[in-house]
Amino acid sequence: MKDNIEIKIAELLFKSNKTLSIAESCTGGLVSSVMTDVSGSSAYTAINFVTYSNSSKMRYLGVKESTLEKFGAVSSQTAQEMALGLIANTDADFALATTGIAGPTGGSKDKPVGLIYIGAASKNNCRVLMQSLDSNLDRIVLKKGFTRIALGFLYEFIIGELDNE
Amino acid sequence: MKDNIEIKIAELLFKSNKTLSIAESCTGGLVSSVMTDVSGSSAYTAINFVTYSNSSKMRYLGVKESTLEKFGAVSSQTAQEMALGLIANTDADFALATTGIAGPTGGSKDKPVGLIYIGAASKNNCRVLMQSLDSNLDRIVLKKGFTRIALGFLYEFIIGELDNE
Repeated sequence: MKDNIEIKIAELLFKSNKTLSIAESCTGGLVSSVMTDVSGSSAYTAINFVTYSNSSKMRYLGVKESTLEKFGAVSSQTAQEMALGLIANTDADFALATTGIAGPTGGSKDKPVGLIYIGAASKNNCRVLMQSLDSNLDRIVLKKGFTRIALGFLYEFIIGELDNE
Repeated sequence: MKDNIEIKIAELLFKSNKTLSIAESCTGGLVSSVMTDVSGSSAYTAINFVTYSNSSKMRYLGVKESTLEKFGAVSSQTAQEMALGLIANTDADFALATTGIAGPTGGSKDKPVGLIYIGAASKNNCRVLMQSLDSNLDRIVLKKGFTRIALGFLYEFIIGELDNE
């Protein structure tokens, strides 16, 4: 647990008695695994998803087929709909969604390996962060990098939301 | 990727053109993350779940409330219903489910920290493995141990099922 951002997030959730739901594409379960490394994480975790396929993004998160067709699975629109879908379809107070390209295949000029969109949502707000990491990085290194960025973004998002309550 | 069991499993799935769905409780997403460390894993992965709560085990996997009440979430019966529920509710050819106690809290005399039930299923078969690891091990070490045991069990299960086809 290098920078312990997961413990900081867990403490925010414990103190505020809030829950978190996660939907992952490119990170493949790693974000969920890190967030459940924290003892007592069952207090804030009910259900997390690894929605790799387009059909699972539609069925379990309510992402629109037209969104996937128009913008692609790796897009800010899809990340937003994944995060908002978690809020709508689960009882979670906060939601985190990841969609990107961990490689080594699947990249293109427009959407290279290392690109990720991260959606964070509450019942009142949704934000999407786009980040590009080095396309030459190994798949597993990228998954770890994506995960740390997603958790840092979630931490700042939750702090902002709790401040606005 | 220490023993590369995930690559061996992936190769079996690639060769046979089969898919895998995973539902995790105590491993919290780590099994899914390891299985998606393999490049090309989108070929065999559509949807994986981290079903921490009882309600999510019922809603997404079809585990019966009576099973949870009678035997508990950490039981061979629940592991079996989680794995069979994946086969029934997703298009997956193979399913893997984990339910156990990663600690440090939540253990009891009958069901100590370190206990795990692992369910593996296909359309024709289901098996459950019970394993007890050292209760004094750290939560994250237990999650990693559970994951390696689950993947070893899955590998043997898939080989057996493919041999019987």
